[in-house]
Amino acid sequence: MKKRPGSLEALTDALRCLPGVGPKSAQRMAYHLLQHDREGADTLGHAILHALQQIHHCSSCNTYTETGLCETCSDPERDASLLCVVETPADQMMIEQTLMYKGLYFVLMGRLSPLDGIGPRDIFFDKLMQRASDGKVREVVLATNFTSEGEATAHYISETLKARNIAVTRIARGVPAGGELEYVDPGTIARALLDRRPA
Amino acid sequence: MKKRPGSLEALTDALRCLPGVGPKSAQRMAYHLLQHDREGADTLGHAILHALQQIHHCSSCNTYTETGLCETCSDPERDASLLCVVETPADQMMIEQTLMYKGLYFVLMGRLSPLDGIGPRDIFFDKLMQRASDGKVREVVLATNFTSEGEATAHYISETLKARNIAVTRIARGVPAGGELEYVDPGTIARALLDRRPA
Repeated sequence: MKKRPGSLEALTDALRCLPGVGPKSAQRMAYHLLQHDREGADTLGHAILHALQQIHHCSSCNTYTETGLCETCSDPERDASLLCVVETPADQMMIEQTLMYKGLYFVLMGRLSPLDGIGPRDIFFDKLMQRASDGKVREVVLATNFTSEGEATAHYISETLKARNIAVTRIARGVPAGGELEYVDPGTIARALLDRRPA
Repeated sequence: MKKRPGSLEALTDALRCLPGVGPKSAQRMAYHLLQHDREGADTLGHAILHALQQIHHCSSCNTYTETGLCETCSDPERDASLLCVVETPADQMMIEQTLMYKGLYFVLMGRLSPLDGIGPRDIFFDKLMQRASDGKVREVVLATNFTSEGEATAHYISETLKARNIAVTRIARGVPAGGELEYVDPGTIARALLDRRPA
């Protein structure tokens, strides 16, 4: 019975560490790289090893950075009294793209998920508490996702912060911009009704 | 506006060389590797570079190997008079798993697809012709896929081989094992009727 060469087998196995990649996709990816994109594969191999060496967490906001303090945290124009808590750097990018927020961030790098064994330690909870208690922060804006894990995370953080007398807010839920009521789910409309505000 | 660190950006870009990976998945993969699987990422980086260095085409059957001649081609137990032509090493593995075929292989590493600019040169056509004309091969079994490209490839190869007086066969089409006629597509049934054989 024919076996695949060892280094091909090793590559296929290694590709499975990528999220959403099973045995069939891993095999397809390995063949693709070797057959159609050796140059891209070389770039990828080096990019992974380089990133592992260069990237670490910002000492202040916990996002990925190549320097000790990230670009955003070192920006003197930022409003240090506002601290926005997000789950991932991707979420942070989305908020940055609105151009509406001028405060600082704290990136949890995850969300509480007891079922997956992800507890406060995994979302850098102590680092967040220390960051929020620096004396400059006057309001913590919770911008975790509106999934059950994101909500639980927001709840957990807000309870702890309130106990320390730090003001906490949560970004608003409601009908999305451009949303038509007919096509919005009832849960969202219910929330939008509850959270209605003076027009 | 916050930018991502250069090496993270480079990693995200590099991941897009994988088939089926767009900008969003690439970003998700990059974050996953950095946050949750640094060890896996390190293994992957090295596995890619190692495979690129080690893997090349078998001088006889064109499949991937770390040696000059692959394991199958160097096996003296194999029937050198039969040559099975497949599109990919994955197809070859599937045929091996049947334990029914004892001949040798030729792996095209693709299929003819003029629309994608894939011509005879890209499927190692000359190498196949040379291989099939070695004097030992008495029958070439075409096992390319039954897609339009696979069929066109089989047709192209069989025409050329027939012109050189080499016997060519094509693996059978028909109702799959365990198939119920009610759930099989009409094209397959039509083919099964046409290719009917004495019971």
